[in-house]
Amino acid sequence: MKEKKYMELALELAKKGEGKVNPNPLVGAVVVKDGKIIGQGYHKEYGGPHAEVFALREAGIEAKGADIYVTLEPCSHYGKTPPCADKIIEAGIKRCIIATKDPNPLVSGRGIEKMEKAGIQVIDGLLEKESREINDVFMKYIENKEPFVFIKNAITLDGKIATKTGDSKWITNEKSRNEVHKLRNRFMGIMVGIGTVLADNPNLTARIENGVNPYRIIIDPDLKTPLEANIIKNNQDKKTIICINKENQKSEKYMKMKEKNIAFLEFEGSRFKMKEVMKKVGELNIDSVLVEGGAEVISNIIKENLVDGGVIFIAPKILGDSSAKSFVSGFDINKITDGKELDVKEIKTYGDNIGIWFGGIKCLQD
Amino acid sequence: MKEKKYMELALELAKKGEGKVNPNPLVGAVVVKDGKIIGQGYHKEYGGPHAEVFALREAGIEAKGADIYVTLEPCSHYGKTPPCADKIIEAGIKRCIIATKDPNPLVSGRGIEKMEKAGIQVIDGLLEKESREINDVFMKYIENKEPFVFIKNAITLDGKIATKTGDSKWITNEKSRNEVHKLRNRFMGIMVGIGTVLADNPNLTARIENGVNPYRIIIDPDLKTPLEANIIKNNQDKKTIICINKENQKSEKYMKMKEKNIAFLEFEGSRFKMKEVMKKVGELNIDSVLVEGGAEVISNIIKENLVDGGVIFIAPKILGDSSAKSFVSGFDINKITDGKELDVKEIKTYGDNIGIWFGGIKCLQD
Repeated sequence: MKEKKYMELALELAKKGEGKVNPNPLVGAVVVKDGKIIGQGYHKEYGGPHAEVFALREAGIEAKGADIYVTLEPCSHYGKTPPCADKIIEAGIKRCIIATKDPNPLVSGRGIEKMEKAGIQVIDGLLEKESREINDVFMKYIENKEPFVFIKNAITLDGKIATKTGDSKWITNEKSRNEVHKLRNRFMGIMVGIGTVLADNPNLTARIENGVNPYRIIIDPDLKTPLEANIIKNNQDKKTIICINKENQKSEKYMKMKEKNIAFLEFEGSRFKMKEVMKKVGELNIDSVLVEGGAEVISNIIKENLVDGGVIFIAPKILGDSSAKSFVSGFDINKITDGKELDVKEIKTYGDNIGIWFGGIKCLQD
Repeated sequence: MKEKKYMELALELAKKGEGKVNPNPLVGAVVVKDGKIIGQGYHKEYGGPHAEVFALREAGIEAKGADIYVTLEPCSHYGKTPPCADKIIEAGIKRCIIATKDPNPLVSGRGIEKMEKAGIQVIDGLLEKESREINDVFMKYIENKEPFVFIKNAITLDGKIATKTGDSKWITNEKSRNEVHKLRNRFMGIMVGIGTVLADNPNLTARIENGVNPYRIIIDPDLKTPLEANIIKNNQDKKTIICINKENQKSEKYMKMKEKNIAFLEFEGSRFKMKEVMKKVGELNIDSVLVEGGAEVISNIIKENLVDGGVIFIAPKILGDSSAKSFVSGFDINKITDGKELDVKEIKTYGDNIGIWFGGIKCLQD
């Protein structure tokens, strides 16, 4: 079926916007006339023109009488750009084939209605699942205003992330670590616990060419992050956010960090409900968070059932030392069937390392 | 290069003898004349005719002037069968292409010498590595008279083999477990610790059609194996061997087990050096041992550097409970680089489970 082929192309185009359109969805569009592709486009950056605009622009006057394939229902409202449904009508498109309706309940179906009223034949649901999958993040965020939570871990064969002395360099190989840098470019925020900051003094930057740095979110109830930490010193982009017990507002360190443009999210007490943290992160318009560790943060997120997806890199190393640090802890499990089971989406190899991808964000695997 | 193609065929033929020729090597042979394959053969069972015999028999009088491809140097001595080098000479073979020399230092090179003296052109070393690989077990056994040691484990993502209550059913899925049954058919012995016998009461049989049951070797210093254990009750094949502290020779249980044809290997004290165990196992002409657990036996074998190869099946489950049982323990590791690193040969998936194959026995991966 050639319709499917065109929609697959539109999906491929959509994915090109990864990491640049958040919190907007990835969208691709293809204009076809007499079996020929005459226009292609995708949503390239947040605030920029939508996919349909590029595709119609490329097709020009040839768009009259053509079909348009769009991975998401064309918008019908004035947002940062004028409604795409109007543009499709104006261009004289004959048929509009859509993969999935707009998930925003306030506008879902309105674009279709508008186009149908204008006499355009609308076909809805072609490769719907695939289109939803590439927009997992968007779908979740639109629905709950909470970020899509993705955990990442690098472990030994026996599930350890560090020796008892805290050594963790390096468990996984370079290929795996490069994949992590790419991952960072695909989320609006990275989250780590204070333990990771103290142990590794990470930069938490994308470290790939043209990469957009993510927000750096630190779980640090007692504000133990040193003033000279990399995430404090290198805050020119003003993207470091520290989650603290609100009692720390009075401290001198807090004031000094404020001067360095560090943002704070404040909570009661020293043991945060991660659900509350995610809620406040969502309120900052951060639609997706990559949780990199350490064990306590990840364990709590798993315990509270907040994981939407993740990847675990396994290196073929064995520590065999019960004092070494496990990547998840604090559970009380009597039966194997009570263990946490991951919904594996793909198993990839990185040299002799393995990446187990589970839960959402299928497109991250490409 | 067509020579390579014929040797590859000979290697494929050789592999058909897996699990049936131990402690002999796997050998395949192909007779080629005027670009046509006129004879094929492999070593089918211990004590039976060698690969060359079958291949020459099939070629018949056509063998005169033909080439023979053999994966291992033809034997020159009278063993259980007359020397193959003589047969090749008698058949009038013109060229003999060999993958690898006989690893037995007492006879290595003699077959080649004999054939060359008879005017046959001998080419040696074609796909040598591949031929050695399919005979890892044989190569090791010939050299040290100790069995090839292969460890197998089924673990959760956090490296656990059971919950704190001892529950272990099932960590891995059916596909992984089927692979284990196939594995059992490829080793002369299976080894487990007494903990596994007490917890699972295993049968330790091949459980596949036409499978040959392996020797069942139990590490049980204090002779805690119950008389009603499956490995005692179902000993019709007389293949259960228990490794004990020799003090148990006086016990009543020992006598009763002797009556049931249980064999014993006796050692000093209650903490065996696994190296000594393997030596005694080798003396019983057992050329290969699959070590299935539990953690203590496997940890000791790793500690004593006795591992020749292995496979670790990983299920995408997390227990996250530090009281759960780890698959390796008792190591004291300060730096990641001091951990045990596996030489990964292949990573395979079994549904959502992963098998990491490392060290020797490449052919087991097919």
